[in-house]
Parts: sequence; C-alpha cells; structure tokens
Amino acid sequence: MAAKYAIGIDIGGTTTKFGVVDSKGTILEQDRIPSNEHEFVEDFIESLFVKLTPMMKKVGGISNFIGIGIGAPNGNIYSGTIEYAPNLRWKGIIPIAKLVEEKFGLPTKLTNDANAAAVGEMMYGCTKSMKHFITITLGTGVGSGIVIDGKIVVGHDGFAGELGHTIIRPGGRIHKSTGMKGSLESYASATGVRETAIELLTAYPERESLLRNYRINELTSKTVYQCALQGDTIANEIFEFTGQILGESLANFVMFSSPEAIVLFGGLTKAGNLLLNPTRKHMEENLLPIFRNKVKIIFSELKESDAAILGASALIW
Amino acid sequence: MAAKYAIGIDIGGTTTKFGVVDSKGTILEQDRIPSNEHEFVEDFIESLFVKLTPMMKKVGGISNFIGIGIGAPNGNIYSGTIEYAPNLRWKGIIPIAKLVEEKFGLPTKLTNDANAAAVGEMMYGCTKSMKHFITITLGTGVGSGIVIDGKIVVGHDGFAGELGHTIIRPGGRIHKSTGMKGSLESYASATGVRETAIELLTAYPERESLLRNYRINELTSKTVYQCALQGDTIANEIFEFTGQILGESLANFVMFSSPEAIVLFGGLTKAGNLLLNPTRKHMEENLLPIFRNKVKIIFSELKESDAAILGASALIW
Repeated sequence: MAAKYAIGIDIGGTTTKFGVVDSKGTILEQDRIPSNEHEFVEDFIESLFVKLTPMMKKVGGISNFIGIGIGAPNGNIYSGTIEYAPNLRWKGIIPIAKLVEEKFGLPTKLTNDANAAAVGEMMYGCTKSMKHFITITLGTGVGSGIVIDGKIVVGHDGFAGELGHTIIRPGGRIHKSTGMKGSLESYASATGVRETAIELLTAYPERESLLRNYRINELTSKTVYQCALQGDTIANEIFEFTGQILGESLANFVMFSSPEAIVLFGGLTKAGNLLLNPTRKHMEENLLPIFRNKVKIIFSELKESDAAILGASALIW
Repeated sequence: MAAKYAIGIDIGGTTTKFGVVDSKGTILEQDRIPSNEHEFVEDFIESLFVKLTPMMKKVGGISNFIGIGIGAPNGNIYSGTIEYAPNLRWKGIIPIAKLVEEKFGLPTKLTNDANAAAVGEMMYGCTKSMKHFITITLGTGVGSGIVIDGKIVVGHDGFAGELGHTIIRPGGRIHKSTGMKGSLESYASATGVRETAIELLTAYPERESLLRNYRINELTSKTVYQCALQGDTIANEIFEFTGQILGESLANFVMFSSPEAIVLFGGLTKAGNLLLNPTRKHMEENLLPIFRNKVKIIFSELKESDAAILGASALIW
C-alpha cells in the first residue's frame, strides 16, 4: 500500500506557503509564491499547480495524495469560499476550494488561515494535550483561532474567531483597511507597533530616542525591538503599551471561553519578554479573581508558516 | 409508572427561586426565599428543604423526583461548588451540590446561574432551533451564557462566560464589588443605569430633567425609563449611552463566536426599543462587514426566573 500525503496551503496577505505533509505532520517539501500577483484567482491556482506538481511527483504523484487543505483570510469552512477578504486582490466571494479541487483533481477543504494555524498547533504543537485554548497571530495583522472542547469555533456562519477586530479602545486609533476605531489589530500588530512608534515620537519631540535615527519608512516592529534592547526608553514604552492593549484584550477573551492557554504566533513574538511581561501583567490585572494565575501564555514552538501548512493539511486527515 | 419531576433552584444575589418542573418544562409549583438571610449555607439549605418538602408532596413525594438542578453565581459544573461568589454571603468554596444532595437524598447538579438560564432558553425558549447563541441577563448585574454547537461553553475550569466582567471602557467607571474599571456590568446593568443617571445629572446641573424630581435613592432604571417615556432628554440619553456600551460589547462577542442570536433577559429589557435601538445600532457599527445584518437581538419570551428554574432543572434530565 502506498503512503498517503496531503497538501497544505496557507494563503496569507502577502505570501502563499504550501507544502507536502505526511500523516505524522512532517512537511516533506515546501515552497511559496506571492499571493497578490495574479489578477484572476484561476491564474493564481495555475501557479500553485505548476509549483506543486513536481513536489507531488517526488513522493509518487497524485495517486499518493488524499487531498488538499487550504487556510485563507475569511476562508469559510462551510462553503469553501473566501468571502470579501480585505487583504486579497480577488474581491467578492471566491469559490476557491471548488476551483482547486477541479484543477488538481483532489478533494479540497478550506478554512480561515488563523483557524488552520490553531488546528496545526492542536495536532502537532504545544497544545496537543489541551481541549481549550486560543491562538493569536501577531503579524502584519492579528489573527486568531479559538478551540473549545477540542474543536475550532467557527460559529453559525463559519466566520467566528475574528479577535483581531474586537474593539479594545472605543473611539481609538483608526484601522486603515476596516475603518473601525480602536481594534486590537490597530495596536498589537507589526503595523500597530510602527504606528505607536510614530505617535510617541511625534507627541514627545523633546525626548531623545535611538528611533529618531531611522527614516520613517524604516521604522518597523523589528527596529523598535532592536532599539528597546539597547535600552531606548521610548522603544521600551512602545512594547509596554502594546503589551497593555494585548493583555487587556486577552483578559476579555479569557472571561469568554476560559482557556487553559493562549498561544502566540507571528513576528511580534520575537520581542520575547519585552512583549510577554506587560501582556501577562495587564491580562492578570483585568481578570476576575477566579481566572487569575491559571492561564498560560505560550509562544508557539511551531513556525507560524509550518503551523498553518500543517493545520491546513490536517483538514484532510 | 409514576410521573417524574425535577427540582430547579436559581440562587440569585438577592432572591433564591425554586420550582417543581415536569419533563415538558412546565413549572408546576414555585416559591422563593431570600438568598442572604442565613449566615451558614446549611441553614439556607434547611429553609429550602422546609419550603420544598410540601411542594414535592403535592406531586407524590420524593419517589417521583429524579433529581435537583441548581444555578448559582460562580457555580461550577465540574466540581458542584460555588467558588468565591462576590454577591453571596457564604465566602470561599461552598460544596453546595453535595450538601443539597445529602439533605434531600436526590442527585444534585450545579451550574452557573446565567448558564442555567441559557439552557432553559435552549430547551424551552426562543432559541430551540439554534445551535449558536449568547444570552445576556441585564439585571442588578450582567450575566451571560454562551452556546456553541448546541453546548454551553464552560471552559477548561467551568467558569467561562463571564461577559459582564469584560472591559469595554479601559480605565472607565469603577465596578464596586470587583474593583475593575470599565466593565460591561458597570454600565449595562440596573446599577449602571442609575450611576449613569447620577453622572449626567451632576455633569450638567443647568439642564432640566424630570429625574431631578426624584431623591437620589429613588433613581432606578425604572424611574429613568418612566422619565424617558415622557420625553425627558437626559433620561433618553441614559438609554442611548447604555445601548452604545452594550452594542459595542455585543459586537466584540459576535466576532468571537459568531452566534445566530443574542437573547436579552432581565429588568433592563423592560425599556424595550429605548434600549434595543441604540444597542443594535452600535453593535452593527462595530462589526466587520461579514458579520453585519446577520445577528438577531431578541428579548427572551421566558420570564428570567422561569428560564433559570427550567435551565437548572434541565441539568437533571
């Protein structure tokens, strides 16, 4: 009997990563293409097909594959469609699972990208033994996957778990792509950290900061991190503030579903304790006593892209 | 074969309501006692026993009963204990299910009071056909029950669903019994409406209002409602503000679990559209487009006390 493999595809706002995965969760082959180079989704799928065909041949070709799992922004597990994803080029409702299935000739399932990462974490990561946890991806944006009783929460319409868009500062900072004010994503993302940096540097022109050595388009969460490590007080305040907002939000999430752990992914987690310490402090301060000192905050041990590829492929097993 | 009945007990901050329920959800007998008259929980249970014994006799006595279900603040379904309930007189961890079971000689189950109401709503109320909904009780405090995939969310420790304590105005109004700032309960409860009234009347001493005819201890959500109906602008602003806070919070909850409906219970719902219209408006404004115009906001058709008695008794069926 031939070994069986699945394909996992993670469609991100910038990059689409994909891989060949075996049933133990080993990614045997992986590659990537840009997400937004193709005006038509059919051409994007053609590019995937061109890249994946030789990868599939290496493990014996299509007959060794049982299917394809896809994680995508606003991906709907019920309908297999991407619906009105603000950060993708294809507008409206895109029946991507059906199109991929037709192109590859393999059963194809779709879910939200952040949910795919949570499934990957549950099957192969640090929450293998947990039935209640939340994953938060702190990248360009803020994604989330919620697991209750060992199942991803998708809600009545397949769109549950948009925690990055919950409001934590009513009337606060405007989120550029949604127009909403004061959402978690507008603060606790790489984009948000950059905005906080610009706000603080502008608000306190008299305060010295290493950050002033950078041109404004060089200000990123990474440069803020590097300056913070060198003891820069504004850079440290930026992470303190980001952690405060994140911690307050996590407290609200904990009082909703009372998870054992919150797993953090994504670029911002590279800041380590600079982010984790204020996050934990403000989460605990905003919890009712019955929830305090119970919830672990963990940095994922999986690479975010691996978790999403693994989680997407796990839709098929 | 004799008919079978259950006892449902709803322990509230002020009053404990209880009843004899049949398997169709009819409350055949009901009564109430104060919750906080007894220093020792054993004496409270003795009072329940004295009241319930004749009610049980009317339907044939204990042999016709299959068990007792209890809803209580901070009631834990896993352990059968009430843990550190701020609004009850008995402090610490109270093994109430065990004590009641021993006193009555009937199997006894416990859950959170708001969860009990949600179960009652699901079994006998307006959400009978729904698998995803949230109930919010707007009474002296704000309680909540969350249903996902037809099951109450209790989380890893049994305490999930404390939505009244989520923070919606960070740094905002202090909540007297928890000390937390800006929680939903500090605004969208009967207590919160009264506080908003006092704040507005104090902030605008020059503005005329019918509310000024009341002594400060007569100011309640009911008097605010009566003045609002007579066209009082401050009273109307109070409901507008309360609905804004509630609507913003509901938007956050919707983006968490994407329910079909939110069911509102409790005294504040008597304000009807005065509360519902601003709540709906601000909920919709704070939702991502994919969630808009999908979520029903419903006033429960069950009386809150009935829902809790029914839901508590349903733990037993």
